[in-house]
Amino acid sequence: MELSRRRLLGTVGAAGAAGLVVGGAGGAIGASASQEDTPKALTTLGSTEVPFRAARARHQAGITTPLQANGHLAAFDLAPGADRKAAAALLRRWSRTAEELMAGRAPDADTGIALDAGPSSLTVTFGFGHSFFGRTGLAKRRPVQLDPLPDFSADALDPGRSNGDLWIQIGADDALVAFHALRALQKDAAGSARLRWQMNGFNRTPGATTHPMTARNLMGQVDGTNNPKPSDEDFDQRIFVGRDTEQQWMRGGSYAVVRRIRMLLDDWEKRSRHEQERVIGRRKDNGAPLTGGSETTPMRLDANGPDGLPVIPANAHARIAAPESNQGAAMLRRPFSFHDGYREDGAPDAGLLFVCWQADPLRAFTQIQRKLDRGDALSPFLRHEASGLFAVPPAAEPGDYVGRPLLEG
Amino acid sequence: MELSRRRLLGTVGAAGAAGLVVGGAGGAIGASASQEDTPKALTTLGSTEVPFRAARARHQAGITTPLQANGHLAAFDLAPGADRKAAAALLRRWSRTAEELMAGRAPDADTGIALDAGPSSLTVTFGFGHSFFGRTGLAKRRPVQLDPLPDFSADALDPGRSNGDLWIQIGADDALVAFHALRALQKDAAGSARLRWQMNGFNRTPGATTHPMTARNLMGQVDGTNNPKPSDEDFDQRIFVGRDTEQQWMRGGSYAVVRRIRMLLDDWEKRSRHEQERVIGRRKDNGAPLTGGSETTPMRLDANGPDGLPVIPANAHARIAAPESNQGAAMLRRPFSFHDGYREDGAPDAGLLFVCWQADPLRAFTQIQRKLDRGDALSPFLRHEASGLFAVPPAAEPGDYVGRPLLEG
Repeated sequence: MELSRRRLLGTVGAAGAAGLVVGGAGGAIGASASQEDTPKALTTLGSTEVPFRAARARHQAGITTPLQANGHLAAFDLAPGADRKAAAALLRRWSRTAEELMAGRAPDADTGIALDAGPSSLTVTFGFGHSFFGRTGLAKRRPVQLDPLPDFSADALDPGRSNGDLWIQIGADDALVAFHALRALQKDAAGSARLRWQMNGFNRTPGATTHPMTARNLMGQVDGTNNPKPSDEDFDQRIFVGRDTEQQWMRGGSYAVVRRIRMLLDDWEKRSRHEQERVIGRRKDNGAPLTGGSETTPMRLDANGPDGLPVIPANAHARIAAPESNQGAAMLRRPFSFHDGYREDGAPDAGLLFVCWQADPLRAFTQIQRKLDRGDALSPFLRHEASGLFAVPPAAEPGDYVGRPLLEG
Repeated sequence: MELSRRRLLGTVGAAGAAGLVVGGAGGAIGASASQEDTPKALTTLGSTEVPFRAARARHQAGITTPLQANGHLAAFDLAPGADRKAAAALLRRWSRTAEELMAGRAPDADTGIALDAGPSSLTVTFGFGHSFFGRTGLAKRRPVQLDPLPDFSADALDPGRSNGDLWIQIGADDALVAFHALRALQKDAAGSARLRWQMNGFNRTPGATTHPMTARNLMGQVDGTNNPKPSDEDFDQRIFVGRDTEQQWMRGGSYAVVRRIRMLLDDWEKRSRHEQERVIGRRKDNGAPLTGGSETTPMRLDANGPDGLPVIPANAHARIAAPESNQGAAMLRRPFSFHDGYREDGAPDAGLLFVCWQADPLRAFTQIQRKLDRGDALSPFLRHEASGLFAVPPAAEPGDYVGRPLLEG
């Protein structure tokens, strides 16, 4: 076990003046060269720690945690012969590693990739897929909420990059901290489970944008505006599994739907801003509804323009996805963008690693996606290429590991 | 043209206290939800601007600029029929776009991907490949320094991901700012040049690490310690083309060697830290030579241990790459890490997007790589999969564009 990296961290530097312009040739590196033996201070970005388990945190980290700049999604399948006991041992190792890494400590036999780095808001979140339960003799404890999602007409899913026995979501504000965690967890899995698929994503770096909370996606559109808010009275009920669940091991947990949604950016970028805004139903610059106000102003879905037609078009994405259009159904979207270079046809292989959270996918993602699938103006610009559905249990109790109530309960 | 985003930016927030622990479930998002209509302040990370051209900057940005968290490398080939005049028009468009973006302004018909973001240390750097000169009738102005690199025994190069007529290096501390620049420059190229290859890379986020200046690569090793320093007397002479060049349009420019170097991380991580340190010749934790001191302490290449053998092994990477082992040859390494997921064989498709800068590749990269190719203990863990060599002219004069002295001189 390494000494805690945090012990090496001194004071935190205050961010400097606005609009700093660094020197041209030589100036920049020259300035650091003179300080090359002096450890730098972490900023809040590096020093922020998200607890793996906390007194009041019933839920795993990475669900309501603010979006991080770097993300990895990975699914594993249990190795042939790995049983419930092996799965329990794996979850125990994974939980220990996640707790160490999230606290900024290095695990045993560390790769050293993130040495000198602060925790950088690292979160690691674990989930179970539909296939996990049969393979571990736990079919009776499989929640009905894990029943396969229906087919949607716009789906072009790659089974090899979909689902899986086990799922890990990693997020951090430093790319090396995130990659370090991915490799450490993969090492823990050796012999028990093998990687099924893995995807990389990103969001904006904290401090790089003036936008208060929502993400901007690769279409340039603010994303997540109409998310349920923890201050909403029914937030917990919508997002987290309540006491009335048949599967008590999921109480306080949540279900994650994961979709790799490629964006046809070449087509999208050919549309004028006006056309794009009518597809979405919101302004591009500030995310305000086309019916006016600011980003957080409620949409006036019944407002008509001088031409007698709805100001927010009937097939606008924001209208069709709105709770008002779906008997109140809502999910907590917490995506990453992805960019895996370019395809053979020259189009960018880029879009959204859509991750959403809900107490019941059937009454949230599935209901909304069915509606989007039928008439969303945005659909022609999207391709759903991979899909996963995972049961994400509550956080581990002190001294315990994630999923123990399922695996040993 | 959009209004400058900088006009929207207010004061800069000072980084908060060290070791901040964000709340568990709900706390984090709840905190931001209450401020959701209040624009955030940029930190230094977002507000830092690197000038596209500056009074004293003879060189393009992105050579001595501190490493950024996100990078894109892209090569373009001129479209069939695109001549010198078309290339000049493209470089003019590219230069204008780069200057706007680096100043935090949006170009015409903007995609909006980076709206609300500060310049975030964006740099855009342009270069010309060997094939550019024949295609534009400029063969006589091709520098001998662009003669193809020799074959190395460890090379397994993919021609489709190597070389190219034109090269762009993009770096920024925000992933959306970097992607925005890539898309804007690609749009500028439409009709004149098509994308040949494109790669994504990353480094640590500023503020996430206490390490003073050098990067840590995906092997966990500090990288770039022995780089030439701008404070070195002969720095300019080593890195930038001097007045005695045959091709005066390159005076003040530099040559970039780009290599996609995949790391065999599964093999590497099986070695003990002791073995790894003997392969490199430096300590893993602080980068100090095995002969002692700190990272910046000179290596004692002639020191022997109690066993009579060199403390820094004869085939250690740092020894073989050192200027002392190469008649003083040195290059400025400025790499990004890459991680493109996993290969069919289960190995990570990850490693180093090696970028190095020098006044003459033959007396820097080529000389050192020839030596490494023969006996470097690190070579068995590396695969060179793509290669490029580009002439990077000096910065544009005010009112001018990058490469004009070549294209219209």
